[in-house]
Amino acid sequence: MRNDQVLKHFLYSPGPTPVPEEVLLEMAKPLIHHRTPQFFKIIQENFELLQYIFQTKNPVITITSSGTGAMEASVTNFLSPKDKAIVLSAGKFGERFAEICRAYNISVIEIKAPYGMDVKAEELEKALKQNPDTKAVFTEYSETSTGVAFDIKSIAKVVKNTEAILVVDGISAIGAMEFKMDEWAIDVALAGSQKAFMIPPGLSFISFSEKAKKMMEKSTLPKYYFNLTKEKESLEKNTTAWTPAISLFIALNSALKLMKKEGLESITKRHALIAEACRKAVQSIGLSILPVVPAVKPSDTLTAVKVPAGIDGLKIPSLMRDKYGVTIAGGQESLKGKIFRLGHLGYFGISDIIIELQAMELALKELGYKFDYGKSVFTAQKVIEEHLL
Amino acid sequence: MRNDQVLKHFLYSPGPTPVPEEVLLEMAKPLIHHRTPQFFKIIQENFELLQYIFQTKNPVITITSSGTGAMEASVTNFLSPKDKAIVLSAGKFGERFAEICRAYNISVIEIKAPYGMDVKAEELEKALKQNPDTKAVFTEYSETSTGVAFDIKSIAKVVKNTEAILVVDGISAIGAMEFKMDEWAIDVALAGSQKAFMIPPGLSFISFSEKAKKMMEKSTLPKYYFNLTKEKESLEKNTTAWTPAISLFIALNSALKLMKKEGLESITKRHALIAEACRKAVQSIGLSILPVVPAVKPSDTLTAVKVPAGIDGLKIPSLMRDKYGVTIAGGQESLKGKIFRLGHLGYFGISDIIIELQAMELALKELGYKFDYGKSVFTAQKVIEEHLL
Repeated sequence: MRNDQVLKHFLYSPGPTPVPEEVLLEMAKPLIHHRTPQFFKIIQENFELLQYIFQTKNPVITITSSGTGAMEASVTNFLSPKDKAIVLSAGKFGERFAEICRAYNISVIEIKAPYGMDVKAEELEKALKQNPDTKAVFTEYSETSTGVAFDIKSIAKVVKNTEAILVVDGISAIGAMEFKMDEWAIDVALAGSQKAFMIPPGLSFISFSEKAKKMMEKSTLPKYYFNLTKEKESLEKNTTAWTPAISLFIALNSALKLMKKEGLESITKRHALIAEACRKAVQSIGLSILPVVPAVKPSDTLTAVKVPAGIDGLKIPSLMRDKYGVTIAGGQESLKGKIFRLGHLGYFGISDIIIELQAMELALKELGYKFDYGKSVFTAQKVIEEHLL
Repeated sequence: MRNDQVLKHFLYSPGPTPVPEEVLLEMAKPLIHHRTPQFFKIIQENFELLQYIFQTKNPVITITSSGTGAMEASVTNFLSPKDKAIVLSAGKFGERFAEICRAYNISVIEIKAPYGMDVKAEELEKALKQNPDTKAVFTEYSETSTGVAFDIKSIAKVVKNTEAILVVDGISAIGAMEFKMDEWAIDVALAGSQKAFMIPPGLSFISFSEKAKKMMEKSTLPKYYFNLTKEKESLEKNTTAWTPAISLFIALNSALKLMKKEGLESITKRHALIAEACRKAVQSIGLSILPVVPAVKPSDTLTAVKVPAGIDGLKIPSLMRDKYGVTIAGGQESLKGKIFRLGHLGYFGISDIIIELQAMELALKELGYKFDYGKSVFTAQKVIEEHLL
């Protein structure tokens, strides 16, 4: 590459995801005050659009924090000290639920599965029978650290007939993969702004069912900033308990309208198609994905690819970014250097997957991986062609 | 006013404050990933610039939350259940400290003063002598709900020689009013992005001394998202524990550089001059300010003005906003309708105070207040002239 070549940048991580230009420009507009009719309208519109995205009639609270804040809120607002909770854990974010529970003196039963697997509804059913005093079950939908999609529909069926509530971390799934909070009987659902919602990080979303609300009324864990009772009261007046991240709320308004316009069905199909193209593409050049298919379903918002033997895994993302302008994500913690994660989430179309795969091929080739150069790109093209033409 | 007239908007609340155009445009740039060398540099630069603003060698943590999040962090990171804390309270935000302490099972001694007053160092000294087991003293610097500036320099002298740490909410003061964390021996200091820092809400800042750090190591209150030990470790690697509000961090970088360029001394003088002009201006048309001067010092970042008898206080801010495009703040909670608050904070110059006073005069006149029309504007002009020419 000539050094004087323009390095065009593409953000293809599984969060933060690319922000549409018209949404970016919303944040460059003069700031408005949050206790004004103009902003109350933004909150009301966002609320209704979020209900649509979550497919729920429940309240959906917008918190000024990253997703971890919503995860904490999902523990502290529904449970009381020494309550028993089951955490389904097969990756960094499942583990985070367990960590938060322990930080708040919750008695945690962690059902673990290896990275690349999920925890099956049958295992949960057994654990719930052995622990009928379980107050809450925490699970990922899309485990962002491994690219595995948990079967939350089956999990919800198991939890539904117990006293426990089901808390689903949908941070890298909701708004991109099929999700029907009410129909599937999910009690608490979380999402994050920098994922399917196509805006920068800084907002998280949390919705809760009637069953969860009853537990909320009895919860005695300490909380203040993340107090959902207070936030719900504020939401009913189209406001927030604390000063909100105004510019992100406004960007969200613009992004949610784009999502509504495309429609959930189309969004879901788009993500599924691109994910399939991506998986087939990487497999076509001899790479393996981390999710152990068909035992588990891979997530449609990112593809976690195993670093092939003999290749320096840390260099794949840095080379793609620094030499080809394409930002993806590496593996986290114990998966560092062992996988790389191709995001295809949010404001991401069929052209983007081609760019992403092409940069991946260049990086792999430079690092000495032997494969049929161009094949992953062509494979993706074929999948797209079959579905679109 | 003709209905077809352009309504030009001015945001003059004591937070959110106006955002400079060049800072707004930073947020419209394509989003970057937060785990990249490019963003590590932003964090490092911000950290050093924040140390300058706080006048400290201590770590300054940036949290993705509004100021209330930093207030919560200042309780949960340094105290343990049933610890004793003294809260100096003469307004909504002092009361919030007491609320947070109670939510976390802290034994609270609230030293209250009427709205418009502050709590004196002598009272605190007495309370500390009666309660030598006090672990922390919480105080406002600028109480945003009343416009009173607490004498934190004297308060710090009293706390310095005890076992307790001093926590100062400087949310509407730091970066605009003189503040020397290290020299004054402040142990924990809080600030918020939408105040002197000239960016939208969504970030809060918290710095802590060695004395506070020692308490932090022993603190057993539960926390997760607001865990400062984790954040400090991350900051040392130029990163954050959780996904940060990237676009706000970048805007902050741009705003902090503007602040550094102007220099703290000049910023402080600018705020003091405009505040003096504002106070003299409102008094010149027979209005009174809420702070009981000279018993207390008024804040230099906002002026809380009492609504004159017979005037509908709720209508002053709404008329100024809807008819003249000037957004100020009303009174909060029990002060609703009784005061209005003129912000003069952050990206706010001498022209702005003239615009703000002019809109206030028009609104007051329309609401039937009798005064010498034009006098407050001219009074402000005179103060400015005396200082600048």
